[in-house]
Amino acid sequence: MRPYGHVALIGLGLIASSISHAMRRAGLEARITGTARTAATREAAAQLGLGEIVETPGEAVAGADLVVLCVPVGAMAEAAEAIAPHLAPGATVTDVGSVKRAVVEAVAPRLPDHVAFIPGHPLAGTEHSGPAAGFAELFDNRWCLLTPPPEADPEAVARLAAFWEALGARVETMEADHHDLVLAVTSHVPHLIAYTMVGVADDLRRVTASEVINYSAAGFRDFTRIAASDPTMWRDVFLSNKEATLDILGRFTEELFALQRAIRLGDGEHLHGYFTRTRAIRRGIIEAGQDTPSPDFGRIGRKG
Amino acid sequence: MRPYGHVALIGLGLIASSISHAMRRAGLEARITGTARTAATREAAAQLGLGEIVETPGEAVAGADLVVLCVPVGAMAEAAEAIAPHLAPGATVTDVGSVKRAVVEAVAPRLPDHVAFIPGHPLAGTEHSGPAAGFAELFDNRWCLLTPPPEADPEAVARLAAFWEALGARVETMEADHHDLVLAVTSHVPHLIAYTMVGVADDLRRVTASEVINYSAAGFRDFTRIAASDPTMWRDVFLSNKEATLDILGRFTEELFALQRAIRLGDGEHLHGYFTRTRAIRRGIIEAGQDTPSPDFGRIGRKG
Repeated sequence: MRPYGHVALIGLGLIASSISHAMRRAGLEARITGTARTAATREAAAQLGLGEIVETPGEAVAGADLVVLCVPVGAMAEAAEAIAPHLAPGATVTDVGSVKRAVVEAVAPRLPDHVAFIPGHPLAGTEHSGPAAGFAELFDNRWCLLTPPPEADPEAVARLAAFWEALGARVETMEADHHDLVLAVTSHVPHLIAYTMVGVADDLRRVTASEVINYSAAGFRDFTRIAASDPTMWRDVFLSNKEATLDILGRFTEELFALQRAIRLGDGEHLHGYFTRTRAIRRGIIEAGQDTPSPDFGRIGRKG
Repeated sequence: MRPYGHVALIGLGLIASSISHAMRRAGLEARITGTARTAATREAAAQLGLGEIVETPGEAVAGADLVVLCVPVGAMAEAAEAIAPHLAPGATVTDVGSVKRAVVEAVAPRLPDHVAFIPGHPLAGTEHSGPAAGFAELFDNRWCLLTPPPEADPEAVARLAAFWEALGARVETMEADHHDLVLAVTSHVPHLIAYTMVGVADDLRRVTASEVINYSAAGFRDFTRIAASDPTMWRDVFLSNKEATLDILGRFTEELFALQRAIRLGDGEHLHGYFTRTRAIRRGIIEAGQDTPSPDFGRIGRKG
């Protein structure tokens, strides 16, 4: 597969920074240009040596055969608008947004016909943000989901897939709406719940802050890690994947009320049966290679 | 502080096994006796060399100056009943249950006056259970909360605290009801929520099992780890800390509905403000030394 000769990164946060690091690690010889909204981010990215950092999206994409939109989902339309007049014929435009239907609607109508838009979503991230948070291993063994439109050129899709595989990712394609439902279950609603629980703890004046922090047993500590993720990114995720999020949330509260009722009524059998069933899914994830079975839950000193 | 000469472990799961390992690591020269309900567990514990394994609680506690009840919360009353006639005068009885008020009510009235009952709760665990899951480092730098009754002998409390500190833990004392409220926030309700979310994913037939497992992004993967915890232990936790769990659950659903409404109405400002606030609690936990800030969130290869 012919590699890209010039990759443009629009937005220079954790993901763009990691793409740059991973491209160098893979020995890809492409020219890398990049830009970000604020001068502070551009300066940080330049100091980190992430690529040729320029002031405007138009300058960044000029001559690029791959353009990766790495801005929050809510800023995709504006970014598409800014790059459209400057895109080279035959270029591929992709993105790394956590939702896909809303990105398709924001970006596709704004791009010229002479480029291919193939939305993408690497399932990778940390609770840190900004260009300094990036690292070359971020995508290793993680999935990158592409949601090409039905009319997409198969060669352009394969070329983009090969790019992500060179960065360490595994690639799968699916339909945009299906992507949004799967992610609502596996990521969006879990994040909303974690944010909520941490908010409850924060509000609870009978339990002092230092107690909540000191005695943060395993469950809560993992929630705070999730709830430390980038606020802007997650605001945009919920606003732009509204339908699937509300659908899954409805099911969640339904189940939660059933468990709450079992607790109130002292129905131990119901609780035990439920908890036994959820154990099995964990085994599936370990077998799928997406986590390790090491007995480190709640331990200090996890290492990446 | 005079160390214990003979420690009896009633129940031989993850916690009892880790106590035995940590005692040896600390060089404590106490005799260790232990028993468990099933022959299979007793056999496994004997093969692991956790101590002198005997068939009945009565044999295990004979002559012990420290007895640690390591059975599920729902089995505490029965365990107390079984050991009561065999306890040595002046012995200390403690436990490791995740709730304290219910354990006090189950155990205290069944013990003779010539022993000191000092409830305890080490905030440590993994999602694995059974004697083979134990390891010497489990309590290192974790809190162990003691909830001595007002009339407890301060010297007996200090002696038990020194024991836990020798195993690597930090010790704090508090009132039993307060313990139960703090833990409802930091552990019990987070676990219930994680169980619920994993159950929702399992039910959702539109999202195939392999997709939920393959694409288990960070949020959900952490939930499955939590939801793989011992079903019997957690059933007992919820049944025996009913009041505080339902109280915190009520607050949780209240907050969740407010966020759900903000999503439905597209109120990005509310969401962003909420998510920004929850980020701060995470920093507090890292500063309190209860987790590391390393950017490994969602990474394969975490190590303990």
